[in-house]
Amino acid sequence: MDLIKIGKLAKSASEELSKLNTDTKNKILLESAKALLENQENILMANKKDVQEAIKKEIRNAFIDRLTLNEKRINEMTQGLEEISRLDDPVGQYIQNKTLPNGLIVGQKRVPLGVVAIIFESRPNVAADAFGLCYKSGNAVILRGGKESINTNVAIVNVFRDVLRKNNLSENMVQIIMDTSREVAQELMRLDEYIDVLIPRGGVALIETVVKNSTIPCIHTGVGNCHIFVDEFYDVKKAVDIIINAKTQRPGVCNAAEKLLIHEKIADDFLPTIGKELLERKVEIRGDKITLEKIIGAKEATEEDWSTEYEDYIMALRIVKDLDEAIMHINKYNTKHSEAIITENYSNAQKFLNEIDAAAVYVNASTRFTDGGQFGFGAEIGISTQKLHARGPMGLKELTTTKYIIYGNGQIRQ
Amino acid sequence: MDLIKIGKLAKSASEELSKLNTDTKNKILLESAKALLENQENILMANKKDVQEAIKKEIRNAFIDRLTLNEKRINEMTQGLEEISRLDDPVGQYIQNKTLPNGLIVGQKRVPLGVVAIIFESRPNVAADAFGLCYKSGNAVILRGGKESINTNVAIVNVFRDVLRKNNLSENMVQIIMDTSREVAQELMRLDEYIDVLIPRGGVALIETVVKNSTIPCIHTGVGNCHIFVDEFYDVKKAVDIIINAKTQRPGVCNAAEKLLIHEKIADDFLPTIGKELLERKVEIRGDKITLEKIIGAKEATEEDWSTEYEDYIMALRIVKDLDEAIMHINKYNTKHSEAIITENYSNAQKFLNEIDAAAVYVNASTRFTDGGQFGFGAEIGISTQKLHARGPMGLKELTTTKYIIYGNGQIRQ
Repeated sequence: MDLIKIGKLAKSASEELSKLNTDTKNKILLESAKALLENQENILMANKKDVQEAIKKEIRNAFIDRLTLNEKRINEMTQGLEEISRLDDPVGQYIQNKTLPNGLIVGQKRVPLGVVAIIFESRPNVAADAFGLCYKSGNAVILRGGKESINTNVAIVNVFRDVLRKNNLSENMVQIIMDTSREVAQELMRLDEYIDVLIPRGGVALIETVVKNSTIPCIHTGVGNCHIFVDEFYDVKKAVDIIINAKTQRPGVCNAAEKLLIHEKIADDFLPTIGKELLERKVEIRGDKITLEKIIGAKEATEEDWSTEYEDYIMALRIVKDLDEAIMHINKYNTKHSEAIITENYSNAQKFLNEIDAAAVYVNASTRFTDGGQFGFGAEIGISTQKLHARGPMGLKELTTTKYIIYGNGQIRQ
Repeated sequence: MDLIKIGKLAKSASEELSKLNTDTKNKILLESAKALLENQENILMANKKDVQEAIKKEIRNAFIDRLTLNEKRINEMTQGLEEISRLDDPVGQYIQNKTLPNGLIVGQKRVPLGVVAIIFESRPNVAADAFGLCYKSGNAVILRGGKESINTNVAIVNVFRDVLRKNNLSENMVQIIMDTSREVAQELMRLDEYIDVLIPRGGVALIETVVKNSTIPCIHTGVGNCHIFVDEFYDVKKAVDIIINAKTQRPGVCNAAEKLLIHEKIADDFLPTIGKELLERKVEIRGDKITLEKIIGAKEATEEDWSTEYEDYIMALRIVKDLDEAIMHINKYNTKHSEAIITENYSNAQKFLNEIDAAAVYVNASTRFTDGGQFGFGAEIGISTQKLHARGPMGLKELTTTKYIIYGNGQIRQ
């Protein structure tokens, strides 16, 4: 496994890619979408092999569901690439351009990052989305998917490489790492000479490994231990609707709510109400002492529960004495993703918005909206939960950096 | 040395600081400026102690010069703080705010990063600048200066802490680490639970240590192996003026030019001209074979020279066969800081601007302009040479992150 060679090929392909204009890039994206459909049979066959392997290994159902492709999912990948072709190209946009008193013209222009590496788990659609977004933003991409989806990922990436080759472009604008061992992943994280940015997409363990080992600047994405706080002054219908939506509409994703904090003054009324609604939808309730008293069938929450992202039909409930305690609890245990307050009180809403430390903070709305598509940015490559570079849903713009372009006519510094 | 305690105090102080309005922050900055002058004697006395220690240790003169304070330099620090008080406060600015079709109002607002740690070498003015910029942008700051300037740094930081205390604000909005050992610095780099961003300000060795060891997101600043390329179509006066300015106006800083590439078609004419000008100004010339032939007194350059930032009266010269070779050489050896072309040819200028990978790329101007003050951004905390988050001179805006603020009225996701 010659990773340095992969890095060099990517670097060189990224230089070629950075010079392409938007029309050319859109043409490749549309041809890639078409080619995905044309090669559907091949991709599904490769996927079947992966799925059968996974079943043999008795991997859990939720994982197999995410791994499995069908015509509908391939269609979605195709539509994703078409949609990316319609988005504005950020490359070449000027953020500012001004003439200084000495006559220097100083412009700040968006340029591609260069080479982006993405380490992802299970879902093969990430291969198509990542290629589309990186390609449109002018970046060569190195993909390293999970070992369970290797056949599918290779089949998908080969479709794109064929399209590039047929257009006399370097196929190395997209590469996939065939060796899915941990050792190679670790080596990849130290390839800072060739890779400009590393984006891990997966669970807590993957993120932690990357933070600890990577010498490449990283963007942490997508771990979401999201909270909803129901304030003393609340509308019960909004509270129930939002909690049920945030918890159950799609529990396996990062913007689903995992924790529910309730103001003690409304605990007697609201706990039985929400308890019934959650239990009816087969949500396991874990709770503190008061919760256990008020909701029959709730289990006791442990300290570990407060920092766990379940990604499942489980919700932990806690009674807090006021807004301050709610804010303190959230800022202590959250993963800086999405947090919501249900309140009819103006000052409490503003305080929550100001003092909660997270990528997205909501008043009276479901945390499930934290998503590039929902926010109207088109596609997204992930949701950043860090503070540097990008925070929240990341689209094309977040896959670029800037460059100062200075036009002079002989200026020297005094 | 209880670093975790320092981290906790900073985190808590940062929450207090993030709530202050601009008027309050400006008041503190102006009082801090005044207090620096009032405590001038103390600071100079502490500095004298540091300087005497350094002289005893036979540390080189350039270093002692950077370490030494006098009334003029304290005045500059004071003026720096006053200037920062006059800059726009980025905190609370909205980057975008829109109403989605479902009625959700989605705003993206600038907020402080939280806790910023700065590891810096020698120059004590960094303590004052860093405090001013972090304070104005709402960030608590943890300073870790070099051991040679510890007495000076403590004296400066104590002035600011007194001002904060007198205003009933947490003095821990600025802290200095008293233990200047390497072990404590290493420990600091892993304090990701409390520190949001780490900015190393120093030489290559410091940056490398940070990249290798830090689990905190970092911004790399200021290593500058900057090039000037003199194209075949050039104006000799512009070329000489710019090269001499970029090399000798202040050779010890990161935006000074270190390398000179010359098109082979003009080598016979231009080498003797620029050689004479450089040698007259006591610049040591290191060069390739042709340079050695044309400039009497030049020394032979080694492979190591091409990647070295001298920060001194030394310049390495190389003849290249065309623009492509110049671009290839620069992209191979540069530190992504500032690069310039001297040319009268339109297409060559555009090609250089497009293909050079650096924070700032110049046509017919000195690389010395890469500076927050020169670009008109007010003060700067450093010059980022990385691609994530910020690239080029970093001011107040670059010390903030963003937060999505979403106002709903019961919206749930379909």
